[in-house]
Amino acid sequence: MRQQDPVSKLVFELSKLPGIGEKTATRLAYFILKQDTSYAQSLSESVLNAKTKIALCSNCQTFTDTDPCRICSDHTRVPALICVVEKPSDVFSIEQSSRFPGLYHVLHGTLSPLDGIGPEDLKITELLKRLETMPASSEVLLALNPSVEGEATTLYLTKLLKMLPGIKITRLAYGIPMGGRLEFTDKQTINKAIENRMEIKSQ
Amino acid sequence: MRQQDPVSKLVFELSKLPGIGEKTATRLAYFILKQDTSYAQSLSESVLNAKTKIALCSNCQTFTDTDPCRICSDHTRVPALICVVEKPSDVFSIEQSSRFPGLYHVLHGTLSPLDGIGPEDLKITELLKRLETMPASSEVLLALNPSVEGEATTLYLTKLLKMLPGIKITRLAYGIPMGGRLEFTDKQTINKAIENRMEIKSQ
Repeated sequence: MRQQDPVSKLVFELSKLPGIGEKTATRLAYFILKQDTSYAQSLSESVLNAKTKIALCSNCQTFTDTDPCRICSDHTRVPALICVVEKPSDVFSIEQSSRFPGLYHVLHGTLSPLDGIGPEDLKITELLKRLETMPASSEVLLALNPSVEGEATTLYLTKLLKMLPGIKITRLAYGIPMGGRLEFTDKQTINKAIENRMEIKSQ
Repeated sequence: MRQQDPVSKLVFELSKLPGIGEKTATRLAYFILKQDTSYAQSLSESVLNAKTKIALCSNCQTFTDTDPCRICSDHTRVPALICVVEKPSDVFSIEQSSRFPGLYHVLHGTLSPLDGIGPEDLKITELLKRLETMPASSEVLLALNPSVEGEATTLYLTKLLKMLPGIKITRLAYGIPMGGRLEFTDKQTINKAIENRMEIKSQ
């Protein structure tokens, strides 16, 4: 079939998505064709809405359709606790746990000298500016991924933030994932889990 | 995040697709956000176009935006050879091999008494009607999937088509898939491959 017909065009567009090959794209396209028109309409609208209505929050730099974003303008949240993450989807991941009471700051990347990404390419200036107006005894939780770049960024930010008085710097705990099994856990994680072992307190 | 914001809405719509869970949907949504607006636009348009401009070809019953479809109206194709398939995506799969010179007929399902799908629910009447006007010595290639339902449908159609004079009925060859390995091939396939073994002719 030529690329001009609507089905092939849809397969072509879908196969640009990450992890979606031509076979999966074909399956998805035919699934969309089999559904009611209402599904195609709402999918189509939500793709366009998400892209056109979304900008960066001027405060925390995450993707948002309102400025400041819903999280930054939520007055039930703790303003003295900022969780620094790599990308907007990390905000989404942490929000799903419903356990984090504070605000976020999205760096939009990690330091990576090999890729030519330095501190000036990340939203670090914006973070420092926010910290200037923070209440006393604030906490910054560095929640970057435990990759080489994530670790380097954590180290860089720790050094930078230590120069600001009265700010507590924390990081996520490392250990065996919940539901994980020792036999399937890599050495480094086991090492970290032993290193950070916790006392069982009698209740 | 609440379902009303555009990103969560997009994740929600994407996660309705088959094989796409919430995690993958989130990854896809953030990928779309990171691309140029032009991608979101063309993806959005192609979803809607595919659904609204597509109908069934009055001849072969496949999904098409023109009636008759591009394949049925292609005069370089052999009209005396019809390949019967289960669903429109099978037409797409066979077309990609670029080896089939004939036309198609899509049944839109297979016989499945347990699910209450009988011959009247498939496009069999339309197939018989097409065969009435077929040239002499036509061939019908039954290309249904080798599942229980596919086999039952092949058997049913074979009996039905044998009553029509001058029509050759064929089916796809079964055997070891190209690039496949004996050690990973199931017993039934090996049995079929031995049963249908072919003579190697000296060239």
